[in-house]
Amino acid sequence: MPGLSLDSEVLLQLETPALVLDRGALERNIQCMAETGRQAGVALRPHAKTHKSPHIALLQMRAGAVGIACATVAEAEALAAAGITGLLITSPMMGAAKFDRLARLNRNHGVTVVADDSAQVTGLLAALHPGDRRLRVAVDVDVGQARTGVTDLAAGVALARMIAAEPQLEFAGIQGFAGHAQHIIDPEGRKAATARSAATLMSFAKALGGAGLPPDLITGSGTGTYGLDARGPYNELQVGSYVFMDADYARIKDERGQGLSFAPSLFALASVVSTNRPGQVTVDAGTKALATNGPSPCVIIGAPNGTAYKFAGDEHGILTIPNGAPPPRLGARVLIGATHCDPTVNLHRSFNLFENGNVEQWPICGRYGD
Amino acid sequence: MPGLSLDSEVLLQLETPALVLDRGALERNIQCMAETGRQAGVALRPHAKTHKSPHIALLQMRAGAVGIACATVAEAEALAAAGITGLLITSPMMGAAKFDRLARLNRNHGVTVVADDSAQVTGLLAALHPGDRRLRVAVDVDVGQARTGVTDLAAGVALARMIAAEPQLEFAGIQGFAGHAQHIIDPEGRKAATARSAATLMSFAKALGGAGLPPDLITGSGTGTYGLDARGPYNELQVGSYVFMDADYARIKDERGQGLSFAPSLFALASVVSTNRPGQVTVDAGTKALATNGPSPCVIIGAPNGTAYKFAGDEHGILTIPNGAPPPRLGARVLIGATHCDPTVNLHRSFNLFENGNVEQWPICGRYGD
Repeated sequence: MPGLSLDSEVLLQLETPALVLDRGALERNIQCMAETGRQAGVALRPHAKTHKSPHIALLQMRAGAVGIACATVAEAEALAAAGITGLLITSPMMGAAKFDRLARLNRNHGVTVVADDSAQVTGLLAALHPGDRRLRVAVDVDVGQARTGVTDLAAGVALARMIAAEPQLEFAGIQGFAGHAQHIIDPEGRKAATARSAATLMSFAKALGGAGLPPDLITGSGTGTYGLDARGPYNELQVGSYVFMDADYARIKDERGQGLSFAPSLFALASVVSTNRPGQVTVDAGTKALATNGPSPCVIIGAPNGTAYKFAGDEHGILTIPNGAPPPRLGARVLIGATHCDPTVNLHRSFNLFENGNVEQWPICGRYGD
Repeated sequence: MPGLSLDSEVLLQLETPALVLDRGALERNIQCMAETGRQAGVALRPHAKTHKSPHIALLQMRAGAVGIACATVAEAEALAAAGITGLLITSPMMGAAKFDRLARLNRNHGVTVVADDSAQVTGLLAALHPGDRRLRVAVDVDVGQARTGVTDLAAGVALARMIAAEPQLEFAGIQGFAGHAQHIIDPEGRKAATARSAATLMSFAKALGGAGLPPDLITGSGTGTYGLDARGPYNELQVGSYVFMDADYARIKDERGQGLSFAPSLFALASVVSTNRPGQVTVDAGTKALATNGPSPCVIIGAPNGTAYKFAGDEHGILTIPNGAPPPRLGARVLIGATHCDPTVNLHRSFNLFENGNVEQWPICGRYGD
């Protein structure tokens, strides 16, 4: 199967900017992570915040995932509508409208949510109807990210007891997401942060065990630390970015200097719209096409080696061409590797899935207002 | 009319995160800029890249704008469908699909576009049908932003001659957008950059006059420099961000230390979803709700004075509460002022227009894939 290439006629006909997804690289990334999970004996519940795509979630499920993690109820609704089971919503939520929407999803499909405060549990209970299936609730533990999650053992045990005591709820286990550790470039620093998070999570697991509530589920992790987390205490990994890779995760290396075992699959297709100055060209992909909270793209297909991208407004980017190299001509197409994959995906309505010289549209679901 | 306030029941019922627009502040901003234009004797063609909203464009037209500037054909299509005339597309474009879409828009509604290369003009010509109304084309001039636009006088005159010689085209004038000058914080530096841009644009106007093609239209400017640009050589101003203001433009001051004459009207409404640590709360508005390419929000309604916002992932932000001040409670709502307004708007499907205690949905149009 030929890979992604600008020789393909179909990429010359798409209106730009457009999000292009290389199916070959995507599937290899999914298989590689699935194999890692199998070898380590740890389950995968890949995170849909990265792709917001029922199509990609189905590929992950077919590769053996036990379910899919979601950041929002809207993401979970889109996946449930595609028949995906094992949904876990990884953000504690508040608000009657949100609780009602979540309760409806649980009624129709079954879902697991997390909480870090009794008020969230009370709110969820108020939204459940008599006769609803039991809502699974996990305790979110702050393992160092300082964002959400209980911070002391007694509070964690009390929250688990409250959940377990409610007939309409089921205590599902614990979640610890070390978001702060995922992007630490120095391998030793990343390893140390991961070890601290693991120790925190383990102390909660032990305290809950001592209280007669041993957690079935110990969930968390991400693409930056999955190799470390697969050794425990996690029994499932919420990996997300590995499906696409991006400029951020391209910087992550292990102690032997090895990068992650995944290839870039996500690109912004852009057109050269101005060649008004020597040494640079202007393309029609800017801050509305690529997320700005990541390093510069590390892959640009269709421009000379060493070409650098910089943002130049809502609709423009500048490619700086190395001295002496021939710039892409006016009207030429380039494929710009994702900066930060999750928020880049969120800027687009669909993926243009490239496979074997053809393109298929895969919708991006659960954006705000969907 | 009571202003935007979290005492309003309707803001407690919206699902978060949501984009909230204060109609009072919006209308005052629109009137203030319209009055500035009238007093200076310069036309306004406000830029829709900021709001992507036919509703807001109609308010601008009712306040006396001669038309609306658009960054993309999709934005222009959405405005044309709402009956808005005087559309100018401010980005040179390339690609047969884009040219066809543009030609269709011109056929049905009439439009002005810009070009900085003969290949763009040739492409546009090829897309026009016999009997189409004449397409108005302006020459885009690089006034120092180094993004698009002709960079030398001879090339500018040659391009204008090419346009003027084509029976299906009309030479509309020149555009010079000093994007690089808009956000210069130091007033002297901003003034100097604006003077250099003005001199460049004036030299093109003179050269074209000498060639028998004096430009009717001299268009450009933005919210950071409109006061300087209103003195010339511009005869119309493409101001955008003034309708909303944001943390970026809040830093802009004139030589007397005066800020811009516009008030913040655009906010992300968020819920406090975790209060797990003292001195901070976590809200459900992160990098998918607020653009990351701007300073931290300078207005947060519903939190103590001195509260600071920082991004904490796709769906989260952290509010750091000043020592001793009472933090918002779990489940409370806060209104977070826009970081950078254009790309923040682009993250949402609609504005929740707040007026007098009620909310109305105003769609955000022309996002990629629309």
